[in-house]
Amino acid sequence: VKIDINCDMGESFGSYVLGHDQELMPMISSANIACGFHAGDPMVMRDTVRLAKKNNVKVGAHPGYPDLQGFGRRSIEMTPEEVEEMVLYQIGALAAIARAEGVELFHVKPHGALYNQAAVNISLARAIAQAVVRYDRNLILFGLAGSQSIQAGVDCGLVCFNEGFPERGYNPDATLMSRKLPGAVIHSPHEVAENAYRLTINGIELNILDEKRYIKPDTLCVHGDNPNAVLICKALIQRLEKG
Amino acid sequence: VKIDINCDMGESFGSYVLGHDQELMPMISSANIACGFHAGDPMVMRDTVRLAKKNNVKVGAHPGYPDLQGFGRRSIEMTPEEVEEMVLYQIGALAAIARAEGVELFHVKPHGALYNQAAVNISLARAIAQAVVRYDRNLILFGLAGSQSIQAGVDCGLVCFNEGFPERGYNPDATLMSRKLPGAVIHSPHEVAENAYRLTINGIELNILDEKRYIKPDTLCVHGDNPNAVLICKALIQRLEKG
Amino acid sequence: VKIDINCDMGESFGSYVLGHDQELMPMISSANIACGFHAGDPMVMRDTVRLAKKNNVKVGAHPGYPDLQGFGRRSIEMTPEEVEEMVLYQIGALAAIARAEGVELFHVKPHGALYNQAAVNISLARAIAQAVVRYDRNLILFGLAGSQSIQAGVDCGLVCFNEGFPERGYNPDATLMSRKLPGAVIHSPHEVAENAYRLTINGIELNILDEKRYIKPDTLCVHGDNPNAVLICKALIQRLEKG
Amino acid sequence: VKIDINCDMGESFGSYVLGHDQELMPMISSANIACGFHAGDPMVMRDTVRLAKKNNVKVGAHPGYPDLQGFGRRSIEMTPEEVEEMVLYQIGALAAIARAEGVELFHVKPHGALYNQAAVNISLARAIAQAVVRYDRNLILFGLAGSQSIQAGVDCGLVCFNEGFPERGYNPDATLMSRKLPGAVIHSPHEVAENAYRLTINGIELNILDEKRYIKPDTLCVHGDNPNAVLICKALIQRLEKG
Repeated sequence: VKIDINCDMGESFGSYVLGHDQELMPMISSANIACGFHAGDPMVMRDTVRLAKKNNVKVGAHPGYPDLQGFGRRSIEMTPEEVEEMVLYQIGALAAIARAEGVELFHVKPHGALYNQAAVNISLARAIAQAVVRYDRNLILFGLAGSQSIQAGVDCGLVCFNEGFPERGYNPDATLMSRKLPGAVIHSPHEVAENAYRLTINGIELNILDEKRYIKPDTLCVHGDNPNAVLICKALIQRLEKG
Repeated sequence: VKIDINCDMGESFGSYVLGHDQELMPMISSANIACGFHAGDPMVMRDTVRLAKKNNVKVGAHPGYPDLQGFGRRSIEMTPEEVEEMVLYQIGALAAIARAEGVELFHVKPHGALYNQAAVNISLARAIAQAVVRYDRNLILFGLAGSQSIQAGVDCGLVCFNEGFPERGYNPDATLMSRKLPGAVIHSPHEVAENAYRLTINGIELNILDEKRYIKPDTLCVHGDNPNAVLICKALIQRLEKG
Repeated sequence: VKIDINCDMGESFGSYVLGHDQELMPMISSANIACGFHAGDPMVMRDTVRLAKKNNVKVGAHPGYPDLQGFGRRSIEMTPEEVEEMVLYQIGALAAIARAEGVELFHVKPHGALYNQAAVNISLARAIAQAVVRYDRNLILFGLAGSQSIQAGVDCGLVCFNEGFPERGYNPDATLMSRKLPGAVIHSPHEVAENAYRLTINGIELNILDEKRYIKPDTLCVHGDNPNAVLICKALIQRLEKG
Repeated sequence: VKIDINCDMGESFGSYVLGHDQELMPMISSANIACGFHAGDPMVMRDTVRLAKKNNVKVGAHPGYPDLQGFGRRSIEMTPEEVEEMVLYQIGALAAIARAEGVELFHVKPHGALYNQAAVNISLARAIAQAVVRYDRNLILFGLAGSQSIQAGVDCGLVCFNEGFPERGYNPDATLMSRKLPGAVIHSPHEVAENAYRLTINGIELNILDEKRYIKPDTLCVHGDNPNAVLICKALIQRLEKG
């Protein structure tokens, strides 16, 4: 089974090292690179672009809220207008560092609280999609499968990738369970691998009222910031290759 | 007498308002827009790009040290590599916001301590010139007339604008007097206007050993952050028009 | 009529000047000094403490969310635990600068979004009250009159000042109208002065279900960040003195 | 041989984990806790104070330059006045969090570039000593043995601890070798242990002109941020106990 595999990358900052970028980069096809607001700094961004290039991995901007301490996982009460310009700022910053390395951006995927809010808040979703369109309408927008993020992107004429999360528990409405709840993050490589296969083949289950729908994902997200990320990623890839 | 007039713009931040952008923009030809590190934020950047566009003023990136409290006037001990990526980051951020407004960047001018250090420190100057070249070799680099900044830019194949400062006192080596010294900043509109005319016609005096040279400026800088900036700018322009 | 008059002070930052501290300080009795998170920096904090001391004005900590760009007016999704330690941090920072000037803190008043949320969210209110108690149970907590902030403070054994806002429009439940709504901020000195007198004598009206209550304020807030702050403050004080 | 052992602690930030605080805390006698400018945040500060308290370790403030990306190791061109208020701010912030845990501060030790500059720059050293004296003249100032830091502290009437670095290479003038040079940081537990013993017994060698002096250290610093910090610390303590 063939599907794009994306991973958040470049989440180190200054002396602080986070993630398993070296080991994971060769296994994925799209890297979402932090842009210095919730993680990353210009040096880390450059190194991550270089690592992606070396591994023929596509590079995307991974904009987040300006909150290094909260790692972009705490929402900040910004207006859609503020979000739009903030996203443009971060896309541009990464695009410049990438261009200096001879790399063009492939996609944009919002991070953390921004991602989760955009999935359910159409004004925020539109602000993000607008930022992408105004920067470059050929960029692909990654968003939670079947969510407002995708709707807003499609409305703006963007090619959108419905994203699935084999490592995360889902709510019945196909949003992600809060990280604060038990079962929100799955740690077993085997379980994640099976999820990945199932999501890819069957799609993501969405229960609205008494209707059940399935949304086929265009990309699967693997997380780089958990201790056995490398094992998980290996298991997942083998499972998909096995078919 | 015809010469480019540039001014630092977009130095407000959040609720904090600084400068006289509305009044000065119609009088200048190039706007150096702060990129969020020493001043400015994404909303201010957007508004400033729009104001420049409306007034047919060229837009340039004005990257500075990451020091809002010190307004980019305190040097930070960064390696040339760190400076290079930091400058790329800031150029890209502004370029994206400008592009979303249909505006392409014309130039890059480093700010404050970064500008002053680049004038005398060739490694720093090269780091900045490299960032510009790697981003877009058609951008023009503004630097202190006759300084290392210009040398580094020329070495990299960039078109460089020698910049003159009619509002600032000069040292004999054609560097700017420290702002801490009396006479470093000239406040009389008449005096600034006469300086502007003299600098444009005669060039900037440079005394090395017993030799005297004159460097013709390609652009003159007017400051937006002093109380009578508007009067100064008017006087200067009238004087140059009078010839 | 005698009542404490408080004002947010020390909201400048680096080169950015905000407010009318010099003119207002002689007219008030309590200064809420920003602690560097939403406004203020160590130099501004020191200068503001000195100014308060010179004018025999009591000094209080004015902690806010870590959001200089949003001036602490955008809420950030922090846990009560995070808020508690953040408030302790800011109280301590100001207390140290004050102590170095021979000044002891008198009170604590949360700022902006933190203030407004604490008024309606008891967990947040408790986090703030706990921070104050743990630092020094003799400090007075300022909170929106009749709100959860006051309730939480009283529960912790703190002396609390019910605060009234003669410059702000009220909702029927005695919370402040959002700044985004028309009528939220009153600009007429005369109207503010009459409000101040009425609030002091009659109390703040609180309509719950069909019951009407009045809460007597212990302190009135005047804002330093609007253009005619000085006129407003003068008018208010004259009105209260006239009785 | 008995001597105080200090270690930089609480250098994590938000999601970023740094150091080996859990393992090292039981082995040391004084913890220098980062105050949120170069590392640390209010939650990390609280947890570190608690850990120190549980292990009967004395708590000190470890103020640094406001530069998380550079980990406080890049100097920033601040005036002595700015440094003084910034140090006060950081001492106060930690003191408040410590006081809330029932812990009083024992000492102050500047961090990184601030520490190294204070060792050779008497104005900066005085600014730091002044901040300590103005906050609490009973706090002990830690500084590089025999340096300007100690001189400034003594001039202010502070009790000062001359600090020795068994893990660092020294220059002939008893300053630390730059971290950029080979041999600046010693990684062998055995070598560090022998250094520790030698420094404690013989003192730190200081060669000025043709004169040789030895300065007895009052405290030894072990670093928490290198991979074998725990082994190093164990070896050092055993060597000192063996005598």
